[in-house]
Amino acid sequence: MAKIKVADYLIERLNSLGIEEIFGLPGDYNFDIVEAIEKNKNVNWIGSTNELNAGYAADGYARTKGYGAIVTTYGVGELSAMNAIAGAMAENVPIVKIVGIPSTKYIENKIRLHHNLDRVDYRAFEKVYSNVVEATAFLNKENAKTEIDRLLNIMVKTKKPVYIAIPMDVCSIEIEDDFKLEEIYSDEDNLKTVVDLIIEEIKKSKNPIVLADVLTRRFNAVDEINKFIEKTSIPSCSLLRGMDVVQNDKKNYLGVYVGKLDNEICYENLNSSDCVIASGTVISDLNTMGFSLEFDLEEAINIQPYYTEIKGKRFENVLIKDVFKRLTEKIDYKSNLELKRTLKYSKSELNEEKPLSAEYIYPRLNEFLKENDIFLTEVGLVPFGAIPMELPKNVSIENQILWGSIGWATPCAQGCAMADRKRRTILMTGDGAHQLTFQEISTMMRNDLKPIIFVINNSGYTVERILCDDVNYKYNDIACWNYEMLPRAFKGDCYSASVSTNKEFDEVLKIVEKEQQKRMCYIELKTDYLDIPSLSLGIAKYPERFKK
Amino acid sequence: MAKIKVADYLIERLNSLGIEEIFGLPGDYNFDIVEAIEKNKNVNWIGSTNELNAGYAADGYARTKGYGAIVTTYGVGELSAMNAIAGAMAENVPIVKIVGIPSTKYIENKIRLHHNLDRVDYRAFEKVYSNVVEATAFLNKENAKTEIDRLLNIMVKTKKPVYIAIPMDVCSIEIEDDFKLEEIYSDEDNLKTVVDLIIEEIKKSKNPIVLADVLTRRFNAVDEINKFIEKTSIPSCSLLRGMDVVQNDKKNYLGVYVGKLDNEICYENLNSSDCVIASGTVISDLNTMGFSLEFDLEEAINIQPYYTEIKGKRFENVLIKDVFKRLTEKIDYKSNLELKRTLKYSKSELNEEKPLSAEYIYPRLNEFLKENDIFLTEVGLVPFGAIPMELPKNVSIENQILWGSIGWATPCAQGCAMADRKRRTILMTGDGAHQLTFQEISTMMRNDLKPIIFVINNSGYTVERILCDDVNYKYNDIACWNYEMLPRAFKGDCYSASVSTNKEFDEVLKIVEKEQQKRMCYIELKTDYLDIPSLSLGIAKYPERFKK
Repeated sequence: MAKIKVADYLIERLNSLGIEEIFGLPGDYNFDIVEAIEKNKNVNWIGSTNELNAGYAADGYARTKGYGAIVTTYGVGELSAMNAIAGAMAENVPIVKIVGIPSTKYIENKIRLHHNLDRVDYRAFEKVYSNVVEATAFLNKENAKTEIDRLLNIMVKTKKPVYIAIPMDVCSIEIEDDFKLEEIYSDEDNLKTVVDLIIEEIKKSKNPIVLADVLTRRFNAVDEINKFIEKTSIPSCSLLRGMDVVQNDKKNYLGVYVGKLDNEICYENLNSSDCVIASGTVISDLNTMGFSLEFDLEEAINIQPYYTEIKGKRFENVLIKDVFKRLTEKIDYKSNLELKRTLKYSKSELNEEKPLSAEYIYPRLNEFLKENDIFLTEVGLVPFGAIPMELPKNVSIENQILWGSIGWATPCAQGCAMADRKRRTILMTGDGAHQLTFQEISTMMRNDLKPIIFVINNSGYTVERILCDDVNYKYNDIACWNYEMLPRAFKGDCYSASVSTNKEFDEVLKIVEKEQQKRMCYIELKTDYLDIPSLSLGIAKYPERFKK
Repeated sequence: MAKIKVADYLIERLNSLGIEEIFGLPGDYNFDIVEAIEKNKNVNWIGSTNELNAGYAADGYARTKGYGAIVTTYGVGELSAMNAIAGAMAENVPIVKIVGIPSTKYIENKIRLHHNLDRVDYRAFEKVYSNVVEATAFLNKENAKTEIDRLLNIMVKTKKPVYIAIPMDVCSIEIEDDFKLEEIYSDEDNLKTVVDLIIEEIKKSKNPIVLADVLTRRFNAVDEINKFIEKTSIPSCSLLRGMDVVQNDKKNYLGVYVGKLDNEICYENLNSSDCVIASGTVISDLNTMGFSLEFDLEEAINIQPYYTEIKGKRFENVLIKDVFKRLTEKIDYKSNLELKRTLKYSKSELNEEKPLSAEYIYPRLNEFLKENDIFLTEVGLVPFGAIPMELPKNVSIENQILWGSIGWATPCAQGCAMADRKRRTILMTGDGAHQLTFQEISTMMRNDLKPIIFVINNSGYTVERILCDDVNYKYNDIACWNYEMLPRAFKGDCYSASVSTNKEFDEVLKIVEKEQQKRMCYIELKTDYLDIPSLSLGIAKYPERFKK
């Protein structure tokens, strides 16, 4: 059996999962890992501006390409990245968090090297991470190979982040160069039962409906669910996190469920259905618009990544992907309904020169979107602007509805753009969130990425202005930057502009359409400090203050 | 007894510890806390650009003013701040980390609100933090007052960070408005014994020497140790973290101990002494230049914040401050030595126009320093440039020698400048570190702070170039920014400039001297990518590559 060094082995295995770029920052305890990357022909090192940004970039990379990886140094670097990794845990994004740590002799003797707390405990940060990842490993000379194999298998199976700490001296230990991903199959008996039961439920149902959510995408069942919907024309809708799962041109697609806020046809068809076929759903406050679903998932058909529940009965070891594939093969059913979603943007109108506002931005942006685009909607109000959009084919919508960490989207866009240079990466963010992490646009330009970035400058945390008691509390103000100048200060090649009317926005989009093929585009959208997408009125503490 | 709401009580108590500014970011779970600050007459809310930066700012504030505080939201915000709080733990900086979390009913019912992991555990992040702070509290209606009191007492006693989680509904519970800090006294018997024994040791010693370090400052014994040195003229020196403890004009002050790298007189006097009086020392790799002390602290006089060891015998409950105060009162001893440190900068010379380099930067900067300055030396090579400086009276040198998190210094400077607007805050950082956290210069300008910031642009992580195998590894490269333009992109009032020769640096310092009285100064120092302070050759992997 061929031998390989631990660091090289890990990088090779990551590459075999499709990873061609690894994000992070070098530090004196991770040199051996970073050098293994620098010397690897198939994997590139992407130096980020800080570890949190590297973590978010790995998140975007994993969302787009399947898996992501980040390397930091011990203590300082890994703690800075933690929010991003916890976010990946919450949002089911598979990332390997790798950390280079001091050599075994220092660990064994508890030597107080730099990057330690005053009380030395070399496993303290692994302990910290164990709360926010699916599994951790602390490598040594004996367990290095088995632990790497174990963790990669866990990540692949759960689509969640894992944490690997590698002492410097362990990096160069030689191990056997073989690796097999454990193949994951459905239990054939259970699968057959599940599919038969679901077909039975559909057949006896008066009004079945598909409710699609994010885990359908994370567990690679998007094609399968769409073929099922295509074949049956069963009405479908989605939760916010899964708004890109069902291709929007499918017959009887009813858009995103937003409770009673809007989209009545979706609300009524879903909540009155006697057969909800829920796919990969995650129930949380914002994803369900305040827990507003009026049926019990336990009384529905609840198809989860590795199990399905049918009216309370649970069947283990059936893969979501297999369920839809087999359903499509076996079902003989065609709905003859002709339903249309009621919540969608009308064509944007440019009758007169008006101050720029959400009312124009989102419909116009909807027209700008095209097939295969990756559209990142930053935490805050942007997802509300995206909900009514009709998505062209294969558009990915990225959001962080459960974890909700402002600042996530900008570095995440770096990772998305890096993961697929052929697709357009479009980011819509707000000034408040952008200021946390905006330096990652430097990394984008340094790597010749060409995302299209829109920064809404509305003078602060507008999402919080609408949630708190007084829209004018000063704590929601932020510094007013010259956004247009920022990319130039980073000395990168970029088309940047600032617009403050609907006409200017319309014109700049036409320019961006062309410029984007050559370089990054970075556009400031100036709006009023209380301008919000109308759907988000539904979460405002005092919505009457915002009615026009 | 007067009643007060929990949030107001906490803010009032922080104010009574000298805190007049609290850093952080608002979020929907901490509105009640942030509003209590906004409404408090004596405490100001300082919105930072992100939570890590807010944590570092609180660190700088605490270093300068005694205590610091930061408020974040649940999950996302608190994890982003974690590296900064762990740094405060490592470096003995007392900060209260406050987090606003969802109301009790959501906690009790484990409701999946935003900012949770997919598996809901409202105590997960407290658990995480318990690894990196001295104590945590998770408030409820019953324990709110006793837990706040307990944690503040712990922070004051240990000078370490504590963590307080406050559910939204607990913020407005009314509690009794009384608070007493537990007074901390020395045990009189032990103190007397310790002082007598130390005097005895000094009297029988041929060559006593004081070794001062950082905990002397953290536990407020700087005046006391200096009076002791003043009275006795016992030779003194310091470890790197405590290089500002002994006033540099004290007779027989021998500067910073750097092992065998340089400063022979310090090396010899310290390691040959039969009576080392160590004050507040922390033994770690960089602080001792690679564990190079040649004596055993257990065989010395080891004066720690709350105990003293004398040749292996330990006496509890004696305060470092009291030990030196009483020693000074009781000792009758005067050294007649006339020693001078050998490691110090000569006057800077400007004979010819030369490319800017460390060789000129640090001596010239030494001349620029004046009484009461706060000088922040970013993690990396800067502390090596500072070691040979002769410090004017009451100059504070801030470094992060144990934790060593690059990016710490810029936001920390914000906190220092905020804590004392009368002193000059001077920051020397490198481009690599600065890029992690530089947006905090926006917060400085927004708050009319007037720090002087020098950014060494040496095209990457030079400290790592000298530590790794090949100075040209690409992973140590970073994006080349237009630093001079950055403050303008933040639209703040600032004097900014870029210099690349020793003459230009000299001239810009003269301008800065005046400009600093009006506004922030931000100066890029362009140097070669391998230009390093000569002392740092001692840590280079292959020093011969750098010899000139």
